Amino acid sequence: MDEERTEAWWGRRAWALLSAVRERAPLVQCITNLVSMDIAANALTAAGASPAMLHCLREIPDFTPRCDAVYINVGTLSEDWLPSMRAAASAGRPWVLDPVAVAASGFRMEACLQLLALRPAVVRGNASEILALASSSDSSSSSFKGVDSSHDSGEALQASKALARSSGAVVAVSGAVDFITDGEQVVSASNGVALMQKITATGCAVTALIAAFVGADPSDALAATACALAIFGLAGQIGMESAKGPASLRMHLIDALYGLDEQTVTSGVKIALVL
Amino acid sequence: MDEERTEAWWGRRAWALLSAVRERAPLVQCITNLVSMDIAANALTAAGASPAMLHCLREIPDFTPRCDAVYINVGTLSEDWLPSMRAAASAGRPWVLDPVAVAASGFRMEACLQLLALRPAVVRGNASEILALASSSDSSSSSFKGVDSSHDSGEALQASKALARSSGAVVAVSGAVDFITDGEQVVSASNGVALMQKITATGCAVTALIAAFVGADPSDALAATACALAIFGLAGQIGMESAKGPASLRMHLIDALYGLDEQTVTSGVKIALVL
Amino acid sequence: MDEERTEAWWGRRAWALLSAVRERAPLVQCITNLVSMDIAANALTAAGASPAMLHCLREIPDFTPRCDAVYINVGTLSEDWLPSMRAAASAGRPWVLDPVAVAASGFRMEACLQLLALRPAVVRGNASEILALASSSDSSSSSFKGVDSSHDSGEALQASKALARSSGAVVAVSGAVDFITDGEQVVSASNGVALMQKITATGCAVTALIAAFVGADPSDALAATACALAIFGLAGQIGMESAKGPASLRMHLIDALYGLDEQTVTSGVKIALVL
Repeated sequence: MDEERTEAWWGRRAWALLSAVRERAPLVQCITNLVSMDIAANALTAAGASPAMLHCLREIPDFTPRCDAVYINVGTLSEDWLPSMRAAASAGRPWVLDPVAVAASGFRMEACLQLLALRPAVVRGNASEILALASSSDSSSSSFKGVDSSHDSGEALQASKALARSSGAVVAVSGAVDFITDGEQVVSASNGVALMQKITATGCAVTALIAAFVGADPSDALAATACALAIFGLAGQIGMESAKGPASLRMHLIDALYGLDEQTVTSGVKIALVL
Repeated sequence: MDEERTEAWWGRRAWALLSAVRERAPLVQCITNLVSMDIAANALTAAGASPAMLHCLREIPDFTPRCDAVYINVGTLSEDWLPSMRAAASAGRPWVLDPVAVAASGFRMEACLQLLALRPAVVRGNASEILALASSSDSSSSSFKGVDSSHDSGEALQASKALARSSGAVVAVSGAVDFITDGEQVVSASNGVALMQKITATGCAVTALIAAFVGADPSDALAATACALAIFGLAGQIGMESAKGPASLRMHLIDALYGLDEQTVTSGVKIALVL
Repeated sequence: MDEERTEAWWGRRAWALLSAVRERAPLVQCITNLVSMDIAANALTAAGASPAMLHCLREIPDFTPRCDAVYINVGTLSEDWLPSMRAAASAGRPWVLDPVAVAASGFRMEACLQLLALRPAVVRGNASEILALASSSDSSSSSFKGVDSSHDSGEALQASKALARSSGAVVAVSGAVDFITDGEQVVSASNGVALMQKITATGCAVTALIAAFVGADPSDALAATACALAIFGLAGQIGMESAKGPASLRMHLIDALYGLDEQTVTSGVKIALVL
């Protein structure tokens, strides 16, 4: 890094990336789980991107190469969708993986490991998901299946660095504080409110947003990921001012994401270099 | 029953069950229709449960045994999902069936009868659905297909008792007043507002909630079902105070479900023993 | 036309059609894309129709003949759903096609052309979709694939007339102003607000509404289409008065659609004969 990446620098960077999404309206193909489609598409649209939920294997050769980014989420994985996921991941576009509940089954873990081998630009999950994926992708460690969310975030941080190095992807671990790493640098993003976890598929929606940011500027996936996470969290903070529960927070969050202005973003984004 | 089940008793019971859901966060696998996924998952999350929309046949042996309850809904039934429904229903966990539009086709009726033979803990439907299912599952009665919602609720009540006895399930018939029976006792739940029927998939969402309540306390499926129905209806009543139409009611209902406190539940729940 | 179709005439006609939907509650089978199901079903329900999201091929012989209308939308087309679409379109009920992103792939274009040959009552798309479809369905013109939304609306208007004549369908082109044609007459509908385009699947929802209007009164598909488009746009205008962004607009739009009264509709609908 040639210049010091202060919080103010990150604020300007986040605004520049959001502006790029709004101007370029990156076309983001989403092969995502059935429950997240509504919120993911609306979050992408509110941010200025152009979502395309398209999962048909026969359409991928024609369509995916035209996309700016691809988003793949295994939340409602099925045998008939997996070939489409692999084909879209192999189409030469930058792509982002959300390994939802990767330890739910051996089939899902195997699918995620296959996808990981297709070199995503970014992988985002919660601590349990990243720990499970890192453990299984590291053949030298003993595998484990019983993943819960009580894992230590420091442990997840080490796992995420190892996963980033072995996969070549930027890895983001979501939590009260999000950590984003390329295997060397680690950046934290500290926006968001706890109630966002009571809205189904906010994690899926923010991963879709990461894909849009990567699509708008593929040159620095670590910055795109950190800024997308921070901006989505910032929209949640603004939404929280008017929310009375998870459903109204969802609405206000999307409204806030649509309405974010330069002053709010540059002063509100909380990103810092951890190490 | 060793003690008299007064309305006050039911109020305390409903609060105890909601508290159990919030504390234990039961993992509820949902194999539900595509249009209900968003509202069902968000209702479960708002109530404190942990929804998992997972329908892949290959994942069921690994995943379903870990769940506290399973919710199966045939609203958008397809040939490729039916084996997953049967496998999940056979995995040894308490499970709940929503026979949406069971009379829509011979294929759907047959699928529901097959599922019914796998011994759900609870079946919830509207009067037409329960009447159709009861009629078709009773080989001694003449079958009929032309089901509409104008059936007499007393007729549905008798049908629901017969269905409960033949299937071994608690059967709930939703309507202006809900009736819940195990084939012997009949309990009524009278919460809710009419506008809830103008929100798509509220029936699906409340059946998901029943599964969460059964998952949190499988010892008394009749009580769990009555309390889930009453609490969802109560959230609708509170939501109605702020609603201006079906879409805002949906939002306020979910917010209210999340925010319910002891005083509101114990004094608001309207459950009574009918016979 | 025996009487002059003034804007006031159209206002009365729109109210008569909305009233017919509310009274007859037409059963509308929707085989639509996964991301639109929630908003389409809720828009139909709010308008007074009875939506049925049912896509299983084996159910169509039993179910589709009972429907008042069928709505087919290829947004998340897949090989396994296409036979159901063709079967439902062939079941003898009036049906409406939404050729979402028809130029996304050769497979999708081919599917839409096959569906078009099954004689929809109405086809609704944006300018790019109608231009692509018209071009490909006209064997005398050179085919093209690179469709974007910068096409001239006048060009789309000519294409829509040609498509209407070749297909026998009423064709609607959505935009800032919607144009509806049966190949001879052209009518414009000018309700709506720009922010509606920032809500995912509003186009899908309004096409579902067109199916409901056609189902309630199949005698004049051009009028049904124009009135459905105008009424949905009018609900958006009313919703906009309370909206703070796309998510709150979505909620207020559905609420407004539910609450529309005679005075609001007859005075608010902006439909005119263009030529």
